[in-house]
Amino acid sequence: MSIVMRRLNFVDPDFQAALKKLLDVDSVSSESSELDSVVSSIIADVREKGDEALLAYTQKFDSLDCASVNELKLSKNRLEQAFLTINEKQRTALETAKKRIEQYHEHQVLPEWRFDDEYGHSLGQQVKPIQSVGMYVPGGKASYPSSVLMNAVPAKVAGVENLVMVVPTPKGEINELVLAAAFLAGVDQVFTIGGAQAIAALAYGTETIPSMNKIVGPGNQYVASAKKQVFGKVGIDMIAGPSEILIYCDGNTNPDWIAMDLFSQAEHDEMAQAMLISESEIFFNQVEEAINRLITVMPRADVILKSLESRGAFILVENQQQAISLIDEIAPEHLELSFEREEAESLCKKINNAGAIFIGRASAETFGDYCAGSNHVLPTYGSAKFSSPLSVYDFVKRTSIINLNEKNIDALVNVASELAQAEGLTAHSEAALLRRTDSE
Amino acid sequence: MSIVMRRLNFVDPDFQAALKKLLDVDSVSSESSELDSVVSSIIADVREKGDEALLAYTQKFDSLDCASVNELKLSKNRLEQAFLTINEKQRTALETAKKRIEQYHEHQVLPEWRFDDEYGHSLGQQVKPIQSVGMYVPGGKASYPSSVLMNAVPAKVAGVENLVMVVPTPKGEINELVLAAAFLAGVDQVFTIGGAQAIAALAYGTETIPSMNKIVGPGNQYVASAKKQVFGKVGIDMIAGPSEILIYCDGNTNPDWIAMDLFSQAEHDEMAQAMLISESEIFFNQVEEAINRLITVMPRADVILKSLESRGAFILVENQQQAISLIDEIAPEHLELSFEREEAESLCKKINNAGAIFIGRASAETFGDYCAGSNHVLPTYGSAKFSSPLSVYDFVKRTSIINLNEKNIDALVNVASELAQAEGLTAHSEAALLRRTDSE
Repeated sequence: MSIVMRRLNFVDPDFQAALKKLLDVDSVSSESSELDSVVSSIIADVREKGDEALLAYTQKFDSLDCASVNELKLSKNRLEQAFLTINEKQRTALETAKKRIEQYHEHQVLPEWRFDDEYGHSLGQQVKPIQSVGMYVPGGKASYPSSVLMNAVPAKVAGVENLVMVVPTPKGEINELVLAAAFLAGVDQVFTIGGAQAIAALAYGTETIPSMNKIVGPGNQYVASAKKQVFGKVGIDMIAGPSEILIYCDGNTNPDWIAMDLFSQAEHDEMAQAMLISESEIFFNQVEEAINRLITVMPRADVILKSLESRGAFILVENQQQAISLIDEIAPEHLELSFEREEAESLCKKINNAGAIFIGRASAETFGDYCAGSNHVLPTYGSAKFSSPLSVYDFVKRTSIINLNEKNIDALVNVASELAQAEGLTAHSEAALLRRTDSE
Repeated sequence: MSIVMRRLNFVDPDFQAALKKLLDVDSVSSESSELDSVVSSIIADVREKGDEALLAYTQKFDSLDCASVNELKLSKNRLEQAFLTINEKQRTALETAKKRIEQYHEHQVLPEWRFDDEYGHSLGQQVKPIQSVGMYVPGGKASYPSSVLMNAVPAKVAGVENLVMVVPTPKGEINELVLAAAFLAGVDQVFTIGGAQAIAALAYGTETIPSMNKIVGPGNQYVASAKKQVFGKVGIDMIAGPSEILIYCDGNTNPDWIAMDLFSQAEHDEMAQAMLISESEIFFNQVEEAINRLITVMPRADVILKSLESRGAFILVENQQQAISLIDEIAPEHLELSFEREEAESLCKKINNAGAIFIGRASAETFGDYCAGSNHVLPTYGSAKFSSPLSVYDFVKRTSIINLNEKNIDALVNVASELAQAEGLTAHSEAALLRRTDSE
């Protein structure tokens, strides 16, 4: 069990082509229209038959036999019981993580504002929480309590009053830590349903499941397809791709730390991507040695090796300018700047595109996954070029406020009627002209 | 030419069913998979053949014969020439509108922030403009200079450095006011291309057209389908539905004003929706009289009448509480609260769901379309329940910043390793443990 890491060189003539190939996941994760049509029929079924369809799919996919959807509802008492019965270390860890996530996200409360212009017109923006949000939590092995906190806490900081969690429990298998996290985060209701049928129920409502304004949370490809299909009826968060880490290091960080940080991304998934940029080939040798030594004690060694072989790389650059342009081009989900903290801070300001930046040698990406306080739901696959981490902003909506002073409106009447006429919209022009102060 | 307005009553037993039917546009505007596949092949073609495909489609759809895409590029001089040759009233109107839109949107600059926690860990968010944005502007009759300002100004306030506009010019027909608005707003490049081929070029780039990080702006159904299909490769703004206005009036506003405000929505499109809520049937009679009197002088009377007949309504309520719950359920794109300003202000605070709220009798929706300063790109079709007006926020992206103090890291190590172990992610746990202060 050993690996020779792929090495690329920024100044090679074929570097861009090699990088493009390495970054591309379209070829492997292309959408399946067959899957989409299966999901589409599940959604139609739940829309039409409500609870009845939901029960049938839950019986089929999760082997749960229920006479009523109410049997799939977990009480607040049941959540509290989970919180009280997990071991104390876990409870304390969840509490600390929750407190820190809350502390971070409280900085994201979007202000309402108003201003008066020179005519005494008052303009502004009103901000309100989204009234109801559905949160999907995967079942089985990918059922992560940290994801519950990362989705629920910003929703609650935003002021969402009705937060409904769904989590499949195949054959009744339930993750107590997930329920404990839901209790701690203040989730309002929990239903043990999953898959496309759960997304359909949250989007359209059934006799028992209330319909939501927005649906967030990760899921498998059926869940992702269902979220895409109900988008428009409800809001959704991003559709996440495989996880990625890009580390830029000056070569002076302990190679074991770098190797383990690469592993901690690669262990998620064979399609995860872990890459290291440096100006030092000697450092690449050291990290490769560490990888081959440390891999032997990793329970998920198979997954890690497959990920590193198919999508990992060491990329040699000549200087910081090359590194920065490369980082902006890749737009990684996680970026570690493994330098002394001061140098990393000054580098950080020059980066345009990244989901989260970990500054300094101690700031391992794993802290961001659990307890630094920032969100671990981050833009993947280059989408950091145009999108952002999950946040409180995603759980509010803004309304523009226009309150015009009728005594001083003529200047605006002239502008609106002039432009409306130029656009051939007569009623728009007349609606303005009727408000002229001398029009009556 | 006259109309009897549909009247609904909030307390009727069949009100909800009637409202649901009235709000539903799915039946008429259902997506066509045939159209999607035409668009899909255009995108594939442009991706593969670049400029060559773009020239062929521009020849086919816009009857423009060019040897090179460079011939479709408009110089900054050409834009300035448009700005200088439109008439002075129009130029002044554009300038005033632009200044006011800028003034409003400057309040939306998203702050960067940092805080130090009790351990000396520094956490925050970095904010940068999206590096490149493509802006679609429709050709022909729907080519609105106001839309150019509403999309381009917030992008420029956000700091977008590379803003590329595309606008089709079928048979060479060009709207000088659109070019003038582009000049005024500081658009960086303009290409006279349109349709799905223009969206494909902006998303994937060709030899001549640079690829963009995000694409915004309205378009026909081919453009909308193309935007949906390239989403993921690039960011997009919302896909807008037919425009809507909902007016809530105490019955004391001039009925002509209300009638004209309903017209100014209805004249956009036969599928546009204009509705009036009041507690007064007598007021409904007065507005109906005004509608039938004023419609006779409207050049777009046909469109207005079709819109009012198929999707318009007067809705009777008994009190403000009913009105507010109805407004939140409809979640209108535009809401006029046609009351005295003080009363409208207090009502406004109780509204959860609306794209823009126009407060007081003088605040006609038309001012929001052109020159109040707020954005006229607003969530339609109930999506104000979960989404917001176009804004400066849509042209920036955030990066989470995590800078941990290595001397004080053990508390976080414990939390991260505890939760990582509970999730079965060994490398995550080890990556934290390696940073313990006593681990070396």
